[in-house]
Amino acid sequence: MFHEPIDGEDPLNVVELIRKKREGKSLTEEEFRFLLSGYVKGRVPDYQISSFLMACYFRGMSEEETFVFTEVMLHSGETVDLSDVPGVKVDKHSTGGVGDKISLLVAPIVAACGVPVPMISGRGLGHTGGTLDKLDSIPGFRTNLSIAEYRRIIGEIGVVMIGQTSEIAPADKKIYALRDVTGTIESIPLIASSIMSKKLATGINGLVLDVKTGRGAFMQTPEDSTRLAEMMVRIGNHFGLETMAFITDMNQPLGMTIGNWLEMVESVECLRGTRGIGDASSDLMELTHLLAAHMLLLGKRVKRYEEGIALSKQSVKDGSAYRKFLELVAIQGGDVSAIENLDQYLLPRHIIEIRVREGGFVAGIDPLELGMTSILLGAGRQRAEDLIDHKAGIILKKRVGERVEDREVVALFHTDREEVIPAARERITNAFLVTATEPTRPPLIRTMIDKEGVHDWP
Amino acid sequence: MFHEPIDGEDPLNVVELIRKKREGKSLTEEEFRFLLSGYVKGRVPDYQISSFLMACYFRGMSEEETFVFTEVMLHSGETVDLSDVPGVKVDKHSTGGVGDKISLLVAPIVAACGVPVPMISGRGLGHTGGTLDKLDSIPGFRTNLSIAEYRRIIGEIGVVMIGQTSEIAPADKKIYALRDVTGTIESIPLIASSIMSKKLATGINGLVLDVKTGRGAFMQTPEDSTRLAEMMVRIGNHFGLETMAFITDMNQPLGMTIGNWLEMVESVECLRGTRGIGDASSDLMELTHLLAAHMLLLGKRVKRYEEGIALSKQSVKDGSAYRKFLELVAIQGGDVSAIENLDQYLLPRHIIEIRVREGGFVAGIDPLELGMTSILLGAGRQRAEDLIDHKAGIILKKRVGERVEDREVVALFHTDREEVIPAARERITNAFLVTATEPTRPPLIRTMIDKEGVHDWP
Repeated sequence: MFHEPIDGEDPLNVVELIRKKREGKSLTEEEFRFLLSGYVKGRVPDYQISSFLMACYFRGMSEEETFVFTEVMLHSGETVDLSDVPGVKVDKHSTGGVGDKISLLVAPIVAACGVPVPMISGRGLGHTGGTLDKLDSIPGFRTNLSIAEYRRIIGEIGVVMIGQTSEIAPADKKIYALRDVTGTIESIPLIASSIMSKKLATGINGLVLDVKTGRGAFMQTPEDSTRLAEMMVRIGNHFGLETMAFITDMNQPLGMTIGNWLEMVESVECLRGTRGIGDASSDLMELTHLLAAHMLLLGKRVKRYEEGIALSKQSVKDGSAYRKFLELVAIQGGDVSAIENLDQYLLPRHIIEIRVREGGFVAGIDPLELGMTSILLGAGRQRAEDLIDHKAGIILKKRVGERVEDREVVALFHTDREEVIPAARERITNAFLVTATEPTRPPLIRTMIDKEGVHDWP
Repeated sequence: MFHEPIDGEDPLNVVELIRKKREGKSLTEEEFRFLLSGYVKGRVPDYQISSFLMACYFRGMSEEETFVFTEVMLHSGETVDLSDVPGVKVDKHSTGGVGDKISLLVAPIVAACGVPVPMISGRGLGHTGGTLDKLDSIPGFRTNLSIAEYRRIIGEIGVVMIGQTSEIAPADKKIYALRDVTGTIESIPLIASSIMSKKLATGINGLVLDVKTGRGAFMQTPEDSTRLAEMMVRIGNHFGLETMAFITDMNQPLGMTIGNWLEMVESVECLRGTRGIGDASSDLMELTHLLAAHMLLLGKRVKRYEEGIALSKQSVKDGSAYRKFLELVAIQGGDVSAIENLDQYLLPRHIIEIRVREGGFVAGIDPLELGMTSILLGAGRQRAEDLIDHKAGIILKKRVGERVEDREVVALFHTDREEVIPAARERITNAFLVTATEPTRPPLIRTMIDKEGVHDWP
């Protein structure tokens, strides 16, 4: 009934390997490679790999197995050699959150400070936004560059932002697509290997990971987030990529905007220095400078992270980060005037205010609910083929810990979809938890993880 | 990348159901039916069901889920209506062991006592033998009858023995084939549903299950065997099929022969009454009479099982069971003279003796190792397409607990394959554990399970 394997491979062997994993034993490097390479080359069918992946979900993977998994995916495609681009190349990767626009900030900041940032980003996934979708909100901006263009631009201006190309880790794409339809996405070793195989292929020398934790993150507990971060740090360093990670809070959205163009506006204003200092976007900039500082550290531009923070702030203050961003927009085909004149962008048909019922303190802003609602407004995809309305999204007026008055406006939302307004209004209103007593603010940065281990931060 | 579902079913729903099971939650009847019917009808692809089955392996299934699973498979094909055949129809099913030839015995015995036995059997699986393969060792015997022939024969002589037809529970066949290649065979609820869906389709009114436990069984611990038995008893009774089970020992082969024609010879001799009384085949007959007695009980032929045992023994003594067997062989196209003249059957090229090295007591006879070795000799299939050599097999001369002398013959093996003799000799020798002190004999029958629960036996 099931198709025979090509090349005379013994199907019994595959079943034995599935059973071995199912029983909680670790596969040898050879066995793991046989299975995965067999899948990538089409010798092992989907239905065997999907039950194997589910067994991995339950049984986990040994460190050696994650290395092999990563390596098979890494070597399934092209690996970019950037050794002729001067400098230590660094990247930052976030595991995904709501309102997380930090890539738009750190890439130009770090490049402006002299460390090349060749950045490969993704699209929105589930309730989270994606850097590529945000970049798409700039008219004309092209993210689907070839490897050749990527190499040229990083050499020319020290920063480039593209999407994953079909040349990089195609096996990861194949396995991810299978995981997506078989309920096997949420496995820490599978997530770690998937992310790292792509990062290892891009020719970078250093990587700072921003591993989100909390209700708006894919890992909702600090324990799971730490396990994921540790695994990625170990994989990176095993393959010679200096890798470190921060566990950061995702129990409320990051920054004051959710939605592609709205997040672009907040980012541009922060890059210009007209926002993010002493206001509600300060949290966003605190994390931006921390991550940028560690990218500068890995990039050998500074010796201590405090120096990096000073340098990062300076690049905003002196306008060099903003100019680098404009340079990036221009070289990737984007309309620079749209960035220079943020207020000339199209407005949505509807801008609706959200008010709290009674005054008190904002004790919680549910990022998962706001992420899901922003999709409803048009800011994300419900199906892979859906088009995004870049104007759509949510603007927050308050953060957790702030005081609100009776009937005060705590948020606005932008949409062209009249029919979703009642549901969106209700969901956003309910996403705000208001209490009579002042809540404790969750720490934004919890832990730092490097090859020496897990460290409390600061 | 993965094919779109037909009929516009939402693939997200399937993933949600996989995730729900993965998280250890029970699916509703509607959800479970949606998933399985979708698979059976080709709307849900293999790779989703295989990860779902692996999640079921880890998370188990609720009673309600096993009922739905069974029902979907049962109703995927024809259900036979035998209500116009007079009498209460009963069957016996064994979960598979080594040397287990009890079907060949109980079917004619119970039929000879007046209770119709329409029996559907299987082929050898793994290290275990199958009733169909044993019946095939009778020249001319046909087991691939149509449902119409099955109905005719059971009406005519009160016993019929066939294989699963493509009309009965085709969904089980499809799911079993997928489980076989995805490492998801060894799940108790999946095994229970699979067996019971076929049994429920055959038109019987009562079922006695012989659930093997021990090294030569698929369930190696009494706990697992009991769980499987309980689940099957619950499923049967839920669907109105009076079902009971015995947990019986499979830590040594059942009876004194392993291999198709050798087992046929032992069975025929036991049916004739020339063997199985006060000799080494007594264990085999003890279990045969116990199971036959409970089939007579379910068949309303007797009121107490002790009566059933007396009746079962009487049918052997008076020759009626043997005559019924000859009638069965004849009506299904078999050569009756081969049964009547057992010694005229072809002999194998090689008959090799196995001797113990030193005397003592037989403390163990490894049924798994003997089952695997019998396949090597030609008695079973290494691949589905392999032909069986019906002459091949092993004859035991001792049972666990018996005394042996230095260099005494404890077994013989029959094969045409000269090249396997050294390996077979070594494996069979090593399958015998001889100790200086007398071992305790394992109890043959451990527990009885009916709809009231689990009972120690006797």
